[in-house]
Amino acid sequence: MTSAPEPAQSSPQTTSDLAELKRLLNQVSDVNAAASLMSWDQETQMPPDAARVRGLQMATLAGLGHELFTAPRVSELLERAQPEQSGPDQSDPQQAETDAALLKVTRRDHAKATRLPTAFVEEQSQAASEAHHAWIEARKNDDFASFAPHLSRMVDLARRYAEYQGFKDHPYDALIDDYEPGMKAAQVKAIFADLRDRTLPLLRRIVAAGDATDYSVLRRPFAAQSQRQFGLKIAQEAFGLNPSFSRLDESAHPFQTNFSRDDIRVTTRFDEAYFPMSLFGTWHETGHAMYEHGVSARLERTPLSRGASLGVHESQSRMFENLLGRSRPFWQRHFEEFAQAAPEVARGQDAESLYRAVNRVRPDLIRVEADEVTYNFHIMLRFELELSLLEGTLAVAELPEAWNARMQEFLGVTPPDDAQGVLQDIHWSAGLIGYFPTYTLGNLLSVQLLDAAKQDAQITEQVDRAEYTLLREWLVQNVHQYGRSRLPAEIVQAATGRPLSADAYVKYLEEKYSDIYGLS
Amino acid sequence: MTSAPEPAQSSPQTTSDLAELKRLLNQVSDVNAAASLMSWDQETQMPPDAARVRGLQMATLAGLGHELFTAPRVSELLERAQPEQSGPDQSDPQQAETDAALLKVTRRDHAKATRLPTAFVEEQSQAASEAHHAWIEARKNDDFASFAPHLSRMVDLARRYAEYQGFKDHPYDALIDDYEPGMKAAQVKAIFADLRDRTLPLLRRIVAAGDATDYSVLRRPFAAQSQRQFGLKIAQEAFGLNPSFSRLDESAHPFQTNFSRDDIRVTTRFDEAYFPMSLFGTWHETGHAMYEHGVSARLERTPLSRGASLGVHESQSRMFENLLGRSRPFWQRHFEEFAQAAPEVARGQDAESLYRAVNRVRPDLIRVEADEVTYNFHIMLRFELELSLLEGTLAVAELPEAWNARMQEFLGVTPPDDAQGVLQDIHWSAGLIGYFPTYTLGNLLSVQLLDAAKQDAQITEQVDRAEYTLLREWLVQNVHQYGRSRLPAEIVQAATGRPLSADAYVKYLEEKYSDIYGLS
Repeated sequence: MTSAPEPAQSSPQTTSDLAELKRLLNQVSDVNAAASLMSWDQETQMPPDAARVRGLQMATLAGLGHELFTAPRVSELLERAQPEQSGPDQSDPQQAETDAALLKVTRRDHAKATRLPTAFVEEQSQAASEAHHAWIEARKNDDFASFAPHLSRMVDLARRYAEYQGFKDHPYDALIDDYEPGMKAAQVKAIFADLRDRTLPLLRRIVAAGDATDYSVLRRPFAAQSQRQFGLKIAQEAFGLNPSFSRLDESAHPFQTNFSRDDIRVTTRFDEAYFPMSLFGTWHETGHAMYEHGVSARLERTPLSRGASLGVHESQSRMFENLLGRSRPFWQRHFEEFAQAAPEVARGQDAESLYRAVNRVRPDLIRVEADEVTYNFHIMLRFELELSLLEGTLAVAELPEAWNARMQEFLGVTPPDDAQGVLQDIHWSAGLIGYFPTYTLGNLLSVQLLDAAKQDAQITEQVDRAEYTLLREWLVQNVHQYGRSRLPAEIVQAATGRPLSADAYVKYLEEKYSDIYGLS
Repeated sequence: MTSAPEPAQSSPQTTSDLAELKRLLNQVSDVNAAASLMSWDQETQMPPDAARVRGLQMATLAGLGHELFTAPRVSELLERAQPEQSGPDQSDPQQAETDAALLKVTRRDHAKATRLPTAFVEEQSQAASEAHHAWIEARKNDDFASFAPHLSRMVDLARRYAEYQGFKDHPYDALIDDYEPGMKAAQVKAIFADLRDRTLPLLRRIVAAGDATDYSVLRRPFAAQSQRQFGLKIAQEAFGLNPSFSRLDESAHPFQTNFSRDDIRVTTRFDEAYFPMSLFGTWHETGHAMYEHGVSARLERTPLSRGASLGVHESQSRMFENLLGRSRPFWQRHFEEFAQAAPEVARGQDAESLYRAVNRVRPDLIRVEADEVTYNFHIMLRFELELSLLEGTLAVAELPEAWNARMQEFLGVTPPDDAQGVLQDIHWSAGLIGYFPTYTLGNLLSVQLLDAAKQDAQITEQVDRAEYTLLREWLVQNVHQYGRSRLPAEIVQAATGRPLSADAYVKYLEEKYSDIYGLS
């Protein structure tokens, strides 16, 4: 019923093409939303015995979404549809622009989706499933050798994926494009080199300065229910996560997902002996949530109705988590509330001591636990290794050694085992090569965007007292509303007046941590 | 991808037909499961602003499920597929039987789904949506006249639906068949006449006997959280609702839904000043849940993998809610636990007084609040009116008067307004004509099945001390496992040795309530 062609109408054929295309894309979007709901439900609500059939159901929905999107009718309509002649909409220039973007981005997505032979997609999916299980075992047993053949296969599949998609300069370009459309390996290389050269000295000065702070306060007891209440209250009142369009649940690994801009699900996890995990985790996911909620309703149920890229997404989550949530004004404003929620943690503390405690810099082994200064070195390391693996200048067997050498070089630490080293992340086992750089690109962009927003004196004045209503408006206006209708580079240029660089982030780190660590 | 035909194989063509058909039916089942999950989520979890887009998404999934099921390829395969030659399965007689049932039932479903013109389905859906809104307003304003034209339209649509589906004796046969496959209006008439003739005198004797019981105990405070804990503990420990395959949530109207036999969702609602609502509601839905969980895993992801009919379903929910949950042994066994959960309710009470309080018989206006004796009169009234409306012997405008006259005749009460009379139920506004009788058929069947199970002395011995493990096994063996692979009448005959009748239920009521009300 839903995919039957419209009966012939008196309006021009092109109107009908675009309208029919939109209807088919709405259908794809709805199927994908159902698949996402199944996934959210699986992580947060589902009874355990349901897992096996749920896996089959999710595979069906994923296959159906792909099948509907790559249907011959969609190809035909994408070729024929024209935004210029879009009938009743042509008097609305913004609608015409949206339609043009819809066609452009959907053609790009469609080309990517149809360039891969079905046999390749199935092989990749199967290999990833096997590699994922192998990785779980390998990490448990600290046995890289058992994972190595799977990783070799994932690297080989990534190379073949890049061949299918095509690239000009480097196969990595075809990979990163899925996560950060338009980004190239050469750009990442240049930005990362600059970042490394300018933050490694800072890190060394911080380490040399020593640290007498008592961090045990972070491990004082804080009941999960109270963590939830406090974290959610801030997410709602300070960051705008209104319960009318969102909810917070618990899951093994925190994430944000959504089934429309008004149906946003955030998850977190609680450690009663380490509250920063849930608080900053909740606020991080809230940043992702507010981005998705800010996408224009015009883009509803289309391929454009989500964030522009992983990097731009991460800029929003990191802004809420770090630039705001780990800022001095934030803790000054919320310390009393915090103390009420966590009296045992707050005993003998004040806003400044807590601000200090949640901003510890310490070179260490695990990426997801890293601070603002060391985090990007974890990413740079992974990016360099991915490039070498793809280029064939590094063999998978040599990976642990190369990992450990770079950890020593960047952070001055060496993993005691591969479980805490090269095996720590899930990404490669899932075939996600080209994904890691977006974390650092997001960090850099978070500061570049905040600096741009603070060109407005009123926003600066608000942010300095931990009030974010105008900032949120600015973000919706300059970033969120566009969804995927503009490329990340276009959004960054228009919002900040220049391309993405490390400049703002380096300056931010130097100012914040020179102050914290009393560097001259 | 998922619907692509299998590559040619060396096995006979029919094997491939059946296998392909099953794969397509799995796909339909998965899409329907996703639609059900969207619905459950909407009732229990979803943020309010998500409602509009969720409606569109659910419509897409419903349309897609219908489209996949009625696809030409499914028709072809249904014609060609043969269970007898089903290749590797032919050595397994039970599998061959399952396959035969799958083809038979699916052909029946498919014929029903394809007999209706799309325009009719859309008209019905649109009319139901309008009628539903009109009903809400009419009930709020006690204004039957404003609902009357909508109800006339629903009756007309029901007649046309019956014409499309075809029938031999009465258009009602085509309607009830959707809820109670194989049941005919004439059978319902005969059973109901017998039930009425044999229980109306009992009701009159009960009313005449008078009632000095203090029912205020039912309105004593019982915290929602404690109701939940106690109700769920019983559901789990006594009735088998294992959290490994189920969960309990809160919703405005209690229901059971599931996305596989191991993924069952039960909901309830709480009134802190009237605990029977949540307790008996939870146990009622638990009966539905255990039925769905008991369907054989062989039927997984096929059209057979749910209960045989609404009536058989209701027999299971009513058994748990009433025959067990409102039995004397149950309250004897669980009174102490209950007293711990609800000390204020239990003060000065004992098992017998609570057993007495939860079994009040009182002719009253509202079906959903009716007791075991009066409930079926609410249903008989609706059935008679539905027949008259369909036959055209009663005009919609005359309905309130006819309703009130029958209420007086059966129960000796007259609704003070239509909101508490003819407008109380949602069913007709949704076009559900032919649905009501299944409630009473379920009540009758609940006792007929329990009596049959208790032919086993061990089951009787267990049930008499409120222990239900053997009974549950019996139900799985004799009812649950078949899912839709057998017609209700086949299940009833095989399980109880005779067709459904009012006999067992009448005897049950007479014994239970003669005892409670001290009738001679």
